Amino acid sequence: MDFSSRLLEQAVEQIAKLPGIGKKTALRLALHLVRENPAYTTQLTEALGKLRSEISLCKTCFNISDHELCPLCQSPRRDKSIVCVVEDTRDVMAIENTSQYQGLYHVLGGVISPVNGIGPGDLRIEQLIQRVSESGSEVREIILAFSSTMEGDTTGFYIHKKLSSLSVKVTSIARGIPVGGDLEFTDELTLGRSILSRTPVQ
Amino acid sequence: MDFSSRLLEQAVEQIAKLPGIGKKTALRLALHLVRENPAYTTQLTEALGKLRSEISLCKTCFNISDHELCPLCQSPRRDKSIVCVVEDTRDVMAIENTSQYQGLYHVLGGVISPVNGIGPGDLRIEQLIQRVSESGSEVREIILAFSSTMEGDTTGFYIHKKLSSLSVKVTSIARGIPVGGDLEFTDELTLGRSILSRTPVQ
Repeated sequence: MDFSSRLLEQAVEQIAKLPGIGKKTALRLALHLVRENPAYTTQLTEALGKLRSEISLCKTCFNISDHELCPLCQSPRRDKSIVCVVEDTRDVMAIENTSQYQGLYHVLGGVISPVNGIGPGDLRIEQLIQRVSESGSEVREIILAFSSTMEGDTTGFYIHKKLSSLSVKVTSIARGIPVGGDLEFTDELTLGRSILSRTPVQ
Repeated sequence: MDFSSRLLEQAVEQIAKLPGIGKKTALRLALHLVRENPAYTTQLTEALGKLRSEISLCKTCFNISDHELCPLCQSPRRDKSIVCVVEDTRDVMAIENTSQYQGLYHVLGGVISPVNGIGPGDLRIEQLIQRVSESGSEVREIILAFSSTMEGDTTGFYIHKKLSSLSVKVTSIARGIPVGGDLEFTDELTLGRSILSRTPVQ
């Protein structure tokens, strides 16, 4: 691309470093900023700057938080005996949206992925073990809630093994046919798993 | 969405105001910034801030520029007798990429679009008329290069009428079958126009 302005080129370069945003989209966004009210650019850059400099992680569950403890860990209404282990903050938000879970979380910050150079040491697995063993017997159940991918399964398996020496029940979220899903068009792996993990009809 | 952090929520809110970016993408981008090296966020916000505060428009062609005159208007190698009128900077970049045009540009800053409340007065049409009439007879040809939409056609027609009192040739970029395009699958409007605007074989 041939830029008439060095400032525009630099802005496009920086925006295009964001995931899923190419040079063309970056140019569109930069030109949008130029056309828009300057106040918006100020608001945007301030929000991003603050996000990066002031954000912290909850010291118990490692979820993104403005304070030492996140609202979930602070809440007296949450069941402290169950901890749901997830990959990142987006998974916490997705599970919270279901309104079906009243326990606490533990955010790993990723999943084991040798291809991307992420080993167990890069995740907050050690902190999870410590959290469970230090709780005495307060934590009674660990729910593994990972995506149904090779990385997710590997991470779940690794944590399960690590926790085996502690007297805590380890469960995994159910895999099966999605609600509204057509049995006929479900892939055989999912269908097979849904038969093996069948549940009693109540 | 249920945010565990007010800072994260504010950042997502601001990012989601960008065109074509929804709340989910905004959250993905914000979490990317949190994970990334803080230096990147600084570079990004600085580039955006500078873009907005220091950018100016070329006083001749109104293209985005770091200086009073853009590199194209300054260049002694460009043909000053032809002016190509376009909607915005992206069109200048697209035409420059073809390496087929050696003249100058005039950036309108939009097209006439009553639906979006954009009338001729909101565009730099008056400045174009002035530029042509003040040039004496230096500007000999005006090329209208707009998208082939109702708005583009309306704008072209309006400028053509406005320029009719001045002794300047007004042309429009050719409409027809795209290079590599299949005649059989070309819509009838384009095909009809390509027959009416047929060119002699050389």
